[in-house]
Amino acid sequence: MSYGDASQVVSELHGKLQREILTDEADRWSYSFDASFGTFLPDAVIQPVSRDEVVKIVQTAVKYRVPIYPRGTGSSLSGGPLPVYGGIVVDTSWMRDKLEVYPDDLVAVVSPGIHTAEIHRAAEAYGLFYPPDPSSSEVSTIGGNVAENSGGPRGLKYGVTRDYVLGLEIVTPEGGVLRTGGRTVKNVTGYDLTRLIVGSEGTLGIVTEVILRLVPRPQDRRTALIVFDDLVSSGRAISKVLTSGILPCAIELMDQACLIAVESYRPSNLPTDAQAALLIEVDGHPEAVRDEIKKVEAICLELGAKEVRVARNETERQQLWFARKQISPAIARIKPTKISEDATVPRSQIPEMFRRLNQIREKYDLQLVVFGHAGDGNLHPNIMCDIRDDEEMERVEEAVSEIFRAAIELGGTLSGEHGIGTMKAPFLPMEIGEIGLDMTRRIKAAFDPLNIMNPGKIIPNNERNRVVLR
Amino acid sequence: MSYGDASQVVSELHGKLQREILTDEADRWSYSFDASFGTFLPDAVIQPVSRDEVVKIVQTAVKYRVPIYPRGTGSSLSGGPLPVYGGIVVDTSWMRDKLEVYPDDLVAVVSPGIHTAEIHRAAEAYGLFYPPDPSSSEVSTIGGNVAENSGGPRGLKYGVTRDYVLGLEIVTPEGGVLRTGGRTVKNVTGYDLTRLIVGSEGTLGIVTEVILRLVPRPQDRRTALIVFDDLVSSGRAISKVLTSGILPCAIELMDQACLIAVESYRPSNLPTDAQAALLIEVDGHPEAVRDEIKKVEAICLELGAKEVRVARNETERQQLWFARKQISPAIARIKPTKISEDATVPRSQIPEMFRRLNQIREKYDLQLVVFGHAGDGNLHPNIMCDIRDDEEMERVEEAVSEIFRAAIELGGTLSGEHGIGTMKAPFLPMEIGEIGLDMTRRIKAAFDPLNIMNPGKIIPNNERNRVVLR
Repeated sequence: MSYGDASQVVSELHGKLQREILTDEADRWSYSFDASFGTFLPDAVIQPVSRDEVVKIVQTAVKYRVPIYPRGTGSSLSGGPLPVYGGIVVDTSWMRDKLEVYPDDLVAVVSPGIHTAEIHRAAEAYGLFYPPDPSSSEVSTIGGNVAENSGGPRGLKYGVTRDYVLGLEIVTPEGGVLRTGGRTVKNVTGYDLTRLIVGSEGTLGIVTEVILRLVPRPQDRRTALIVFDDLVSSGRAISKVLTSGILPCAIELMDQACLIAVESYRPSNLPTDAQAALLIEVDGHPEAVRDEIKKVEAICLELGAKEVRVARNETERQQLWFARKQISPAIARIKPTKISEDATVPRSQIPEMFRRLNQIREKYDLQLVVFGHAGDGNLHPNIMCDIRDDEEMERVEEAVSEIFRAAIELGGTLSGEHGIGTMKAPFLPMEIGEIGLDMTRRIKAAFDPLNIMNPGKIIPNNERNRVVLR
Repeated sequence: MSYGDASQVVSELHGKLQREILTDEADRWSYSFDASFGTFLPDAVIQPVSRDEVVKIVQTAVKYRVPIYPRGTGSSLSGGPLPVYGGIVVDTSWMRDKLEVYPDDLVAVVSPGIHTAEIHRAAEAYGLFYPPDPSSSEVSTIGGNVAENSGGPRGLKYGVTRDYVLGLEIVTPEGGVLRTGGRTVKNVTGYDLTRLIVGSEGTLGIVTEVILRLVPRPQDRRTALIVFDDLVSSGRAISKVLTSGILPCAIELMDQACLIAVESYRPSNLPTDAQAALLIEVDGHPEAVRDEIKKVEAICLELGAKEVRVARNETERQQLWFARKQISPAIARIKPTKISEDATVPRSQIPEMFRRLNQIREKYDLQLVVFGHAGDGNLHPNIMCDIRDDEEMERVEEAVSEIFRAAIELGGTLSGEHGIGTMKAPFLPMEIGEIGLDMTRRIKAAFDPLNIMNPGKIIPNNERNRVVLR
C-alpha cells in the first residue's frame, strides 16, 4: 500500500473550509485513540460542517491518495476511527445542523454529528421513540452508530441501529454523493445499499445524513430484578419467558463478580451471595405490562429464582438501572486494563457459553467477569488485566481467542455490537470463511478502489494478529 | 453479452442429478412466464433438491458461460425469474427438506422451497410468529421472498422479509458456498452480506438455506372496517392513529372503485357509496388491543368517519379480511389485463398521492383503482386494461411512468414490495441516480464477473424501456 503525503491535502484545503485544519500535535493527540486500544497519531484532523465540505475533503484526498478516517466522538470499542496508516481524521461531530422529526411520516432526518440521546429526546417530544440505545448514547453520534451498527439493551425487542435506518446520504470514497433508501419502511428498489453501509465501519463512505424510522412511544414499562442461585437456572428462565408469548424490551444479566464489584463501588442493595441476577423490563400498553411483569415473576419463581424485586415506581426502576449501569465503572477498579468483548451466541447457548467462560477463566487464571444483554445472547465477557504486565497479556490474548472460538462454535458471532475494527480483524475469516472474506474484499474494492477510506479496518492484513494493540 | 450454449450444460449434468432436466417445450413453457408480463422460453429447466446439486449446476454454468435464473413458484410481479437471455431456469421449489423451528433461539432454519404459509404454521405450533405475509404466502416460497424482500399488510408494524432474515446460505455466481449472518439478532461481523442478498432478486446468488427470526405470537387482535366519505379524511385518520401511540399491525385502504368491484363480485356488505374504507387491525396483549381498537374508533369518528364496524369475533374478523382479499380477483374482472403497481410514498404524502393518481386516471382516461397497505405508504394503484389494445397500452405506459415520477417526487420509491425485475429496470436511475446505478453495477460485477446469475434484472440495459413486455 503506498499512500501520498497528507500535507498536500492540508495545503490545498487551507482557508477553504469553515473550521481550521488541526495540525498541532496536541490537537492531533486527542484523535489518536478511541475507547479501545492502540494509539496512532494522524497527520491532520479536519472538522467539516457540511456535506459539501466532506465532498471537498474526499476529492482532495483522492487526488493525493491520502487515507482518511471518519470519526464521531471516538467512543468506539473496536478501533473503528483509528488512523492506523496515518493520514487525515475527518471528525464529523461538527455536522449538527439537522435534527428534524416528521411525526406524520414517523421518521427523523439527522446530521451525523447529532448525539443518539438527542434523537431520543427529540422523538419523545412528539410521543415517538427511537429505540437503539448503546450505553454511550449521551456522547456517541448517530454517524458513529450507523458506521458501527450500534446495539444496546433494547436490541432484544427492538433490534439495532440497522433496523431503524431507512435512508442515507454518504460521500463515497471517490468523492461522489450517494443517496440510498428514503423515507418509507418498504423500499425494494435495487440493492439494499443502505444496510450495506450500516455497520461497514466507515470503510465504504462518510455518512452525511441519516433518515431514521421512529415508532410510537410505549406508554408504560415495568422492571424487575430477579436473583438466582445458579447461572443455569437464570438461562432457563430467559428461555421460558421468551417462549411464553412475552417479548421484554430488555433482559440484562449480571454474574456474581459484577454484583460484588457494583456493591463495593456504589452500594445498590444487590445480592452479593447470588450467582446471577437478571434485570427484565417489559414495555407497552399499561394493562399489558402489568400483566406481563406478573407472568415474568411467576415463571422465574417456578424456575428457582430466590427473589424477585419488581420496581414499584419510576424511582425504583431507575435505581435498578443505575445499579446495572455501574457495572462498567465498578469492574474497571479491579485492574487498570479492561478488555470488553461482545461475543454473541444463540439464546439457547447462553448456559453453555457461561460454562466455557468459566473454563477459560480458570485455564488462564484471569479476572473475567460477565454481564450483558442476555436476552439476545449478546454477552459482555470483560477481562480485567494490566496492559503493562506482558506475561498476563499473553494469557489475555489466548483467552480472547478462545472466547471467539467458543462463540463461533456455539453458532454465534465474534461481535454482536462493538464492530470488528482493528481489534478483531485478524479473526474475521474464522467466522465468515474464505469466500465471505473474498466477497468483503471485492465489495471494498468496488466502492474504494484506492483503499483510502478508513483502511486497516475489518479486513485482516498480515501485519498483526493481536487483539490488544500495545 | 455473449453467452454459451445451454445444451452443453444439459449434457454434462445429464444423469448426475436426482431429478431429470426438463427440455421438452411443454415443460419449459410453464417456466417462461411469471405473474408479470413477457414470456421467455428457457433452454432447459433444472430442479435441484440440495445445495450440492445447486453447486454442481452453477459450476457447470460457469464453465460454459450459460445464464441461470433462480426461480421459486413464479408468483413474482416484476419479472424476477424470467429467462430473458435464454439459458437455464433453476427451480428451487423442490428444495424442501428443512423446516426446523428452534423455539429457545426464536429462529427457524428453512429450505428455499418451503412456502411462506408453511413457516407461519410451523412457528405458530410453538406459540411463535413469522410476521411477513405477502398475499401470495400460500404459494410463494421463502427463497422467492428472500430474493424479492417480500412485504405484505403487516409491514407497518412488523417490517418486511429483510427484517427477519438473520442468516443465509447461498451458492455464489461462481459456484462457491457462502454462509452469511447466523442465529443471533445482533451480529456486526463484517459487511452485512445477508441484507445485501435479501432483495437482490437472485442476481447475486442462489439461496439454499435461510435462518429466520421469529417473535412471540401476539395473543389477541382486533379488526375494524372504517368508512369515509372522502379519501383525504381517511388519510388524516391514518396519520392521527399513528401519532397517538398506537401501532396497528395493518392499515389497509380501499377506494370506491375497489368497494364497488368487490360488491359486484362477492357481495361482502361493503359500503359502495363511500369514497374510501380502511381496514385497521391491532394485535398484542388482549387488554391492550381492546383499548386500542376503541381509541382507533374514537379517532376515526372524530375525523369524520361515517361508520366504524368492529369485528365482534373471529368469524366477523375473517369476513372483513375476506372482503379485502377479494379486491385483486374482483378488479381483474373489469378488463383482461391488470397492471399492479406498488409505488410507495412517505405516509404523510398519501392524500397527495391520491390526488395525483386521480389526475393520472383522468388525463389518460384509464380504469385505475387504488388499494393497498396505506399505513406504511405502500399503495397498489392497479390499471385495468387490455394488452391487445395498442392504443390503450400506449396510454398505460405513459400513466405508469407518471405514477413512478409522482412517487419519487413525493419522496417515495418505485417499488415498495414487488421488486424491480425486468418491469421497472428502465426506471431505476430515476430513483437511485447515476452514482447509485454505478455502485449497483460494481457490486453485481464483484459478485458475478461473468454476468450469468439472473442477468437482465434490476440493472437497466438499453434494449427496452417499457414496463409491460408484450
